[in-house]
Amino acid sequence: MMKKINLYVLFSFLSIVVMAQGKKSFTLDDLLPGGRTFSQMSPKNMYTTWWGDKCVETSVDECNIIDAKNGSKSLLFTISDLNTWLGGDEENKIVRSCYNVTFPEGDKTWVAVRVSQNKVEKSRKYKYVVVDFKSGQPVLSQEYPTEAVALDRSSASNSLAYVYKQNLYVINAKGKTMPVTTDGSNDLVYGQSVHRDEFGIHKGTYWSPDGNLLAFYRMDQSMVPDYPQVNIDTRISSTYSCKYPMAGETSHKVTVGVYNPNTNTVVWLQVGDPTDRYFTNISWSPDSKKIYMIELNRDQNHAELVRYDAISGVKEAVIYEEKHPKYVEPMHGLLFLPWDETKFIYQSQRDGYNQLYLFDLSTEREGKEQPTLTGGSKKENVKVTMLTSGQWVIKEVLGFNVKDKSILICSNELHPLQSNIFKVRVKDGKRTLLDNGEGVHYGKLSPSGSLLVDSYSSPTVTRNINLTNTVSGKSVEIFTAENPWKDYNVPEITSGSIKAADGVTDLYYRMVKPVDFDPTKKYPTVIYVYGGPHAHNVEASRNYYARGWEIYMAQKGYLLFILDNRGSQHRGIEFENVTYRQLGVEEMKDQMEGVKFLKSLPYVDADRMGVHGWSYGGFMTTNLMLTYPDVFKVGVAGGPVVDWQYYEVMYGERYMDRPQDNPDGYKGSNLRLKAGNLKGKLQIIIGYNDPVCVPQHTLSFLRACIDAGTHPDFFMYPNQEHNMLGTDRVHLHERITQYFEDYLK
Amino acid sequence: MMKKINLYVLFSFLSIVVMAQGKKSFTLDDLLPGGRTFSQMSPKNMYTTWWGDKCVETSVDECNIIDAKNGSKSLLFTISDLNTWLGGDEENKIVRSCYNVTFPEGDKTWVAVRVSQNKVEKSRKYKYVVVDFKSGQPVLSQEYPTEAVALDRSSASNSLAYVYKQNLYVINAKGKTMPVTTDGSNDLVYGQSVHRDEFGIHKGTYWSPDGNLLAFYRMDQSMVPDYPQVNIDTRISSTYSCKYPMAGETSHKVTVGVYNPNTNTVVWLQVGDPTDRYFTNISWSPDSKKIYMIELNRDQNHAELVRYDAISGVKEAVIYEEKHPKYVEPMHGLLFLPWDETKFIYQSQRDGYNQLYLFDLSTEREGKEQPTLTGGSKKENVKVTMLTSGQWVIKEVLGFNVKDKSILICSNELHPLQSNIFKVRVKDGKRTLLDNGEGVHYGKLSPSGSLLVDSYSSPTVTRNINLTNTVSGKSVEIFTAENPWKDYNVPEITSGSIKAADGVTDLYYRMVKPVDFDPTKKYPTVIYVYGGPHAHNVEASRNYYARGWEIYMAQKGYLLFILDNRGSQHRGIEFENVTYRQLGVEEMKDQMEGVKFLKSLPYVDADRMGVHGWSYGGFMTTNLMLTYPDVFKVGVAGGPVVDWQYYEVMYGERYMDRPQDNPDGYKGSNLRLKAGNLKGKLQIIIGYNDPVCVPQHTLSFLRACIDAGTHPDFFMYPNQEHNMLGTDRVHLHERITQYFEDYLK
Repeated sequence: MMKKINLYVLFSFLSIVVMAQGKKSFTLDDLLPGGRTFSQMSPKNMYTTWWGDKCVETSVDECNIIDAKNGSKSLLFTISDLNTWLGGDEENKIVRSCYNVTFPEGDKTWVAVRVSQNKVEKSRKYKYVVVDFKSGQPVLSQEYPTEAVALDRSSASNSLAYVYKQNLYVINAKGKTMPVTTDGSNDLVYGQSVHRDEFGIHKGTYWSPDGNLLAFYRMDQSMVPDYPQVNIDTRISSTYSCKYPMAGETSHKVTVGVYNPNTNTVVWLQVGDPTDRYFTNISWSPDSKKIYMIELNRDQNHAELVRYDAISGVKEAVIYEEKHPKYVEPMHGLLFLPWDETKFIYQSQRDGYNQLYLFDLSTEREGKEQPTLTGGSKKENVKVTMLTSGQWVIKEVLGFNVKDKSILICSNELHPLQSNIFKVRVKDGKRTLLDNGEGVHYGKLSPSGSLLVDSYSSPTVTRNINLTNTVSGKSVEIFTAENPWKDYNVPEITSGSIKAADGVTDLYYRMVKPVDFDPTKKYPTVIYVYGGPHAHNVEASRNYYARGWEIYMAQKGYLLFILDNRGSQHRGIEFENVTYRQLGVEEMKDQMEGVKFLKSLPYVDADRMGVHGWSYGGFMTTNLMLTYPDVFKVGVAGGPVVDWQYYEVMYGERYMDRPQDNPDGYKGSNLRLKAGNLKGKLQIIIGYNDPVCVPQHTLSFLRACIDAGTHPDFFMYPNQEHNMLGTDRVHLHERITQYFEDYLK
Repeated sequence: MMKKINLYVLFSFLSIVVMAQGKKSFTLDDLLPGGRTFSQMSPKNMYTTWWGDKCVETSVDECNIIDAKNGSKSLLFTISDLNTWLGGDEENKIVRSCYNVTFPEGDKTWVAVRVSQNKVEKSRKYKYVVVDFKSGQPVLSQEYPTEAVALDRSSASNSLAYVYKQNLYVINAKGKTMPVTTDGSNDLVYGQSVHRDEFGIHKGTYWSPDGNLLAFYRMDQSMVPDYPQVNIDTRISSTYSCKYPMAGETSHKVTVGVYNPNTNTVVWLQVGDPTDRYFTNISWSPDSKKIYMIELNRDQNHAELVRYDAISGVKEAVIYEEKHPKYVEPMHGLLFLPWDETKFIYQSQRDGYNQLYLFDLSTEREGKEQPTLTGGSKKENVKVTMLTSGQWVIKEVLGFNVKDKSILICSNELHPLQSNIFKVRVKDGKRTLLDNGEGVHYGKLSPSGSLLVDSYSSPTVTRNINLTNTVSGKSVEIFTAENPWKDYNVPEITSGSIKAADGVTDLYYRMVKPVDFDPTKKYPTVIYVYGGPHAHNVEASRNYYARGWEIYMAQKGYLLFILDNRGSQHRGIEFENVTYRQLGVEEMKDQMEGVKFLKSLPYVDADRMGVHGWSYGGFMTTNLMLTYPDVFKVGVAGGPVVDWQYYEVMYGERYMDRPQDNPDGYKGSNLRLKAGNLKGKLQIIIGYNDPVCVPQHTLSFLRACIDAGTHPDFFMYPNQEHNMLGTDRVHLHERITQYFEDYLK
């Protein structure tokens, strides 16, 4: 018996050596964004855009139309053609690639491209140029400064809005530039995203469908203090403006203007006093006459969908209200049915999961406040029909198919880890799966919705792209990416589920086993964690969504374990809001269920367990190290939250309320108060210029540890913000890896 | 033979165990200032003050006169007496100890003490109270705010000058408070030390001998940018003012005012344009009518001793000039002979070593520029006599003995590592040793100079205090401190010298051997280094001046080596200024001679060499790690200079000139440019609020290392400045120790 085992061990040892010799090893540069060889080690991709309902492949050298029936390609034009039309030639190229061309009009042979003006003359301007690719003749040319940000184009009116040096400008179709505002500053922000990108806000300008009016945000943040961010690159270090409203403190005030380029006037929506209110999800009515907006109170427990007259700014009606004892979080604007201007689709998780609701504006009347399934209430002042339902979430609405009056969505109906594309018939909510039912799919819909570019990966599929007829459901494969890691010694990556600390809920994990795994050995084990809302770490895409660093660590002989605890994304509102007013508590309980599971595995070395995470994961990492000092020997926490009173109002108060209203919750999650518990090795790493988790978190924690006589380690990256970008990302992970090598191995 | 050795090893091993068992071990708290048990582990001391020429011992409970002949003590009064006179009693003590009482008048039975006013009433005031300890009656009472700084008292006029909320005030003998200035601010500094405490400046007010006029500094630093120092203790981090003129940049402008409390007017000395000039060593003439000042140009290579009329502010004469191709550094004011107002003592190192010169003002005439022995020049507009000379330095002038017309000094004439007290006859410069000729002595002279409190220690003497008659030279021992470490296992501490890299100069070192030293073993070795001007690390005082951390490290099994390289203090100007325009270069050469010596010792493990230093020593440590990456395995650098362009004008330009005038020198000493050389483990530690070596040094170095792909470690102490104070000092040294334990052992 003994001999057999020894022989087996010897054999497996020999086979490991052979395997390891036969395959290549990864460098961090291969595995991390910012790494020098990362792009060549990433799956190849195909880039497409729409010309009306025709699918065009844009590559460096040419544009080709892809036949939706058989996937065959036919040349539209080459980069050389394009340069000729733009007035350049082989020697003097105006544009270097066709990657970013667009086709602004489906019924015209127009191609649009951005030209760096200094190709022609020395200036700090860009030019947006449209040429007819049939005649080669220019159609449109608009110049704007290279420093312009927040660009927003209306193809209906061929107008371009942008922000330059804090003020909002519009260029009309004739190329005339009009300043919309003149008093923009760090204190007064125009035309840019507000409320720190919360509530689904990612931009600050909204063209009316006809392109004749521009709604835009104005944010007065003069009453918000600057966090003192320091620039070390000036002759003597200097500070720069970084407005940061902290939880419980005075916040900024947002209002919404409507600019009419034809009259050069601005009308302000009559919202009343904007103090402590959030204005989100600005949506235009299809006739370009009304603006809908969701208005949320500072407590974030009462949302109103309000309609304004876009011409006068007058408030017309409250269409709908939603309340919840914890919070409501409106993330999506209205989607009017292209075939019926009286109806729109609204997304809400009021009944537990983000689902589609059909609102009928033709039925306006005063509704009654009624309870929701999740303990909140709703008040529907128009008729509302629940279009989809189930214990799964709609992740994205891709658009409408006008022909068969359906709406196309991505959801995790088939499996919590998957994302699949369905067509939902608006008439009765009937759903039809449009993809292969596996993995994680991303869809891009053509303007009429008749064609779909369906790009997906799965644990066994690197990347496949199909072009799908959304009416017939017929598909043609137009791209298959080769596995870029086929010659490498890739660790085994598996996924599974355990029960949460509530004993009921399924939690999904990913496990990355050490390369050349030997089940008779005991391996040092590192838990990678995020754990906060709005994110997940495990999904059924390529390699179960494994991060490059996990592969690297597996190659170094570690076992990696990643568990999406309660509080994370895509599992419904109660899964998420169990953390309300006590961030960290339930999340850690779930992670400790993961630890329990790990300890049950014979190949996990319970005496060598580490933890690593960034941002919310830095909060979790630090918290776990301090709360379970005998479990975790080594931790690396990046850009952590230490005390939620130092986090910003919008995100922070949603989950924690104001410090003055939840003193116990803030105390319970204040990691400074646990600083004396530190026993293992904990390194905290931050970007010196982090404007998200400002350095005050970590610095006050270091101070608390010093006062408590404990010894965290610390590093920071000057000139970096919340996440380390570029080659610094590689440097960072060398550092993280070395810390585990020094103290966990 | 083999057996003998083995037996010997065994025996020595046994004896070590016995020794180690018999003696106690130190904690860091025992050994470091700020440590909880530091004061009880430090040598006891006796505190004395002068009542005229009588020596008074001030203790917690009482004041005793010490008889200068036999050392016997007689009670003057008790703390209980004092409290009674102040209006308190046993229950309600007004003052808690006699430690800080003074006797302002030699011929009056007056005792002065500072009373915290809130002992009597709730207020933020202190009271300076003088009572007659014969009658118990009050003599004087002056109130001033507790936040007052820069207190300066004239016992001649019983006036008190102080700075409160940036303005200068004077309280006269009648208790009347007069504001001298009203426009003080962070930009406009009054009555405080200027020029960043360089050139021997340590205060900002200078009372005339008769106490009727007050000369004071005014510094306009409105043109100097603030370094952005961040306070993390406010609700949201905030910055505070920290004016920092960097090398080569615009500096502050200093002028000198003379305030007359009787007329309540200020006269300004007519210095001309103060741009790029330093005004130092303000001295009054004995008749209170003239002010002498040394004026230095920005290049710091030309000093003028100038006389002003104190009443009119008019510039009267340039008494003396000194130039040097490298720099001159006037550090001392004029000392007029008490018995001849036409003569004063001036200290200069113009001839190579800091020595005494006698200036005779009765001989004023236009002198000629003449060369000095060190390659500079002098211009003497009065007759100047060199009073002392030799290849040793005068460290301190203690004062005059009026009776035998001598001046008392401390010098290292007997040995470069010693400091001994001599009497110098002014008539002919004849020197008489007044102490025992050993160790390092500190002297406090009575007002007439007839008595001397001589406190000293040596490698074998913990602390002895003698009371010496300076005329007869007779001494009586009044205090002997017991060795507080007698029950502890103290490492062997030795000193010796090696030759500098120039092959000629003697350099002195201290070696602290591991406890229970075994010469047949090889020990990890740490070099502690400072290496910069104005400081030394090795002297013939208690334990050869060993720092507590060295003892701790020796206890942990390390050998410590400390060498004062060229560039350091008390060895003459050419020893120091060899570093001019190339800081670090010669210093490192000398340290490497130390390494050569260490490598010649069989018990030093050349494969385990580390280095540690702070400030200039942090610069040296980092530089050594980067310049000799194969020699040093581990380094800990505290608050380092990384790039001299980030250091301040006064100190920085003295040694390096302006960056624009010495680009090669700045380049050669810029550690960022060597960031890619890092091979061993280097931890840099700073005070987050360091106003001396501002964080820009270290942060820009971290950035350079990240860009170069090297991996320094880093820590910082929020709320600490250039040196870690209080218990943080213990935390810091735990950290430093652990780093060597982790990587060098």
